[in-house]
Amino acid sequence: MAARDLEQGVNDMSDGATTLAIIGGTGDLAQRKLVPALFELAYRKRIPDDLRILAYARSDFTDEQYRNFMWGKVSEFREFATHVDDWREFARRMHYIHGDLTDRASMGELKEHMHRLDGGADASGNWLFYLSIAPWFFEPALRNMSALGFADERRGWRRVVIEKPFGHDLASAVALDNLVAEVFRENQVFRIDHYLGKHMVQNLLVFRFANAIFEPIWNRNYIDNVQITVAESIPVGERGAYYDEAGVIRDMVQNHLLQLLTLVAMEPPNIADPESLRNKKVEVLQAIRRPGGAEMARNAVRGQYEGYLAEVGVREGSITPTYAALKLHVDNWRWRDVPFYLRTGKALANKVSEIVIEFQRPPHSMFSVDADGDSDGDVPSNVLRLRLQPDEGIHLGFQVKSPDTNIASMEFTDLEFHYKSAFNDHSIPEDYERLLQDALAGDASLFIRNDHIEEAWKIVDPLIEAWASGNAPPLQRYATGSWGPVAADALLARDGRAWVG
Amino acid sequence: MAARDLEQGVNDMSDGATTLAIIGGTGDLAQRKLVPALFELAYRKRIPDDLRILAYARSDFTDEQYRNFMWGKVSEFREFATHVDDWREFARRMHYIHGDLTDRASMGELKEHMHRLDGGADASGNWLFYLSIAPWFFEPALRNMSALGFADERRGWRRVVIEKPFGHDLASAVALDNLVAEVFRENQVFRIDHYLGKHMVQNLLVFRFANAIFEPIWNRNYIDNVQITVAESIPVGERGAYYDEAGVIRDMVQNHLLQLLTLVAMEPPNIADPESLRNKKVEVLQAIRRPGGAEMARNAVRGQYEGYLAEVGVREGSITPTYAALKLHVDNWRWRDVPFYLRTGKALANKVSEIVIEFQRPPHSMFSVDADGDSDGDVPSNVLRLRLQPDEGIHLGFQVKSPDTNIASMEFTDLEFHYKSAFNDHSIPEDYERLLQDALAGDASLFIRNDHIEEAWKIVDPLIEAWASGNAPPLQRYATGSWGPVAADALLARDGRAWVG
Repeated sequence: MAARDLEQGVNDMSDGATTLAIIGGTGDLAQRKLVPALFELAYRKRIPDDLRILAYARSDFTDEQYRNFMWGKVSEFREFATHVDDWREFARRMHYIHGDLTDRASMGELKEHMHRLDGGADASGNWLFYLSIAPWFFEPALRNMSALGFADERRGWRRVVIEKPFGHDLASAVALDNLVAEVFRENQVFRIDHYLGKHMVQNLLVFRFANAIFEPIWNRNYIDNVQITVAESIPVGERGAYYDEAGVIRDMVQNHLLQLLTLVAMEPPNIADPESLRNKKVEVLQAIRRPGGAEMARNAVRGQYEGYLAEVGVREGSITPTYAALKLHVDNWRWRDVPFYLRTGKALANKVSEIVIEFQRPPHSMFSVDADGDSDGDVPSNVLRLRLQPDEGIHLGFQVKSPDTNIASMEFTDLEFHYKSAFNDHSIPEDYERLLQDALAGDASLFIRNDHIEEAWKIVDPLIEAWASGNAPPLQRYATGSWGPVAADALLARDGRAWVG
Repeated sequence: MAARDLEQGVNDMSDGATTLAIIGGTGDLAQRKLVPALFELAYRKRIPDDLRILAYARSDFTDEQYRNFMWGKVSEFREFATHVDDWREFARRMHYIHGDLTDRASMGELKEHMHRLDGGADASGNWLFYLSIAPWFFEPALRNMSALGFADERRGWRRVVIEKPFGHDLASAVALDNLVAEVFRENQVFRIDHYLGKHMVQNLLVFRFANAIFEPIWNRNYIDNVQITVAESIPVGERGAYYDEAGVIRDMVQNHLLQLLTLVAMEPPNIADPESLRNKKVEVLQAIRRPGGAEMARNAVRGQYEGYLAEVGVREGSITPTYAALKLHVDNWRWRDVPFYLRTGKALANKVSEIVIEFQRPPHSMFSVDADGDSDGDVPSNVLRLRLQPDEGIHLGFQVKSPDTNIASMEFTDLEFHYKSAFNDHSIPEDYERLLQDALAGDASLFIRNDHIEEAWKIVDPLIEAWASGNAPPLQRYATGSWGPVAADALLARDGRAWVG
């Protein structure tokens, strides 16, 4: 991430050609995200010319059949259909081997194939394994990888990318981490939260720490509260069975929303290298107040959209929440008494992800002094809005003088920055492009360390348990296309605040 | 300005109809600024229906002839030509009386006419005199106004608007103030600096004091330097004779640039009423360091555009400067050691007026740590640009992450606010509209108090004298259409700084 790490990454790659093995290479993620991202990276010369892709899955494809299968899928997405020639060029990198990851002999064949691509068992080559598989395959896959020595770095580096879910509670996360640790050292492990691949998320660090004017006011002296919203407009759709087990806290809060919170709240690291950055993020999680499940539930709202119970895969009478709003506190010098309000849900009015920093009001308003000589203080707060999607950008809401009136007449408007107008739209990389490029370069800055995962579970587990036990305010129904339960407004209203819409 | 003052102003006007007397009612200012502004204000219902305008000048016009004469001029400017019917409606307010302001009997006739418009010598009515005359007519006009009791407020309020120049040095300014004070109390006097009528100038107060996030960083701890630029692209043109006497310091620095400086640097007043605001501005002038003319001249650059000597009215071999750049210091707790760089000139590359706040660089750059572990500090400063003209607005220059690169790759871009796109273009009042409206309402916030004028002369007089005496770096020639003498760049370069272009 910093210059010296990038050099390290470049050196890593120069040791030999790299093979990216997609375990689960015909699946939805490979179709929709991984292969399109790799195609885009190749087209833009962001990955080495000699990078090979080896897909591994159960279907019985030849290399050529796999390439055609994938083109059928990929050309549905984005604007790739007009790039047939580029695809043919790219597709030559792609190889396929079919097998069953639960079968050790089959996984051994995968390993043999990778050696063959390197030029033989003694040839050097770097291997990146992408586990694009359902959670229940993690254990057999990793056990076979362990037994077969997939992490042995004598012929080149070995890394693994793991997709969430990273467990479903603290205990299962620890078990998974232990299992992974039997195969790989922590610095070989790249846990993906694709939210960290979003351009504005990375820009948040630059915004805070490459500018001198925001950091002085980025604390409890000037900030009144922080609001993090990740709203989805779609319902659970085909993911009903998975979702009904998981619920909104595991699906969104434990990972995405807490990630965003740590980036807003973290102290400046000395240097932007992966360990320094991740240390500072974990320190934020460690500082989040843990008052026990009953108290957490009193500061939270759970909702379920009307119609959820009719979704395929959802259990009869399910009380799985599809919406959550909660208030957290970060107990340190910077943030003491500044509430962090988080909300996320499905089937809401809009798809929008944003971080809102609501500053304190001006201490005194010289423009609105009433008859008693008091300032009525009726000036709105400055609001900094960091929009992740759609229309990535930054809005700084501030007061200006209205034209053609006396000076006391003001309007609230925005200082605005939009990535899409400031830069060429197409040059903003998709989440997975950024993250695959970093994993190939060995830069773990935007990947999640095991201790982060575990701290996050420690925060949310008591709430999940309180909700399950019923020792908590009841589940609220909300209309599809609404902004969630009204109780979420009440959560802020009782603090004298409101969601900044 | 604050609510209670506006009420005061409204009460003033409700005492009776108001007559605005334009002394010099056929002149350039009346044609180009005053009558167009009044027409616009009437069209927008910003002045009372019963406001009368009485023009006084030497030409022998009837009311109707004056109205036609003025329509011929006014319809050349702006988009008025299509508003003939509105003009006819407006023109009924306009009356004309010819005379000679040096002649007491003639000025007596003006007074009689104003009484007639009020409905007789005993009728009540408010009088606003606008002295739109050459400086050498000030004394005779004021002496006649004094002798004829123009300031007598028994039948309504009496006010006078005075245009610059307010003297040509401290002594002449004091003499003028004394002369004015023989006729009017200070709170009847409205000295115009039309720069204060600019919308962004008024917005500067709102920006600073109706938002909570800028004031904490608005001081020496976070601001590196302040740059104020008022650049004109036109040469002196027909004003050669006047200009050659005055020079750039009297023409621009003593008034406009020091006004802008006071608005940037002032402490927050308790309340935005005229006296509180003007007290705080004068306190800034009082804090400006006065090291004597020779030292000031060492921190200043004077220039004259090539071709100036050929302008009509300019004396042979004139060393009158048409450009000045200077460094000032405001010696108080807020600004100690923060240089204020001012520059202004004629025949420059562009017409632009702006205030640039250059913040200090981030104390440490985590994104660019070199091999020694040191931050190379090579991150640009945040820059706040308050643009007065053209395209009034605010730009906050900051670092963002470039798309599609590693996190250490950043670009400098702007958070932007443009008045013209945020509000209807036409709703931004012209300088003189704002100021005439305020003078009629009795709000002196945007007018200049006598002590301000005198403090400003105390600051610039030593520099003017040093330049005249030759005890100063020599006059620099600069090319028409350039950004002025290169010495102005050197002035900042020797402090390790540069003009933010």
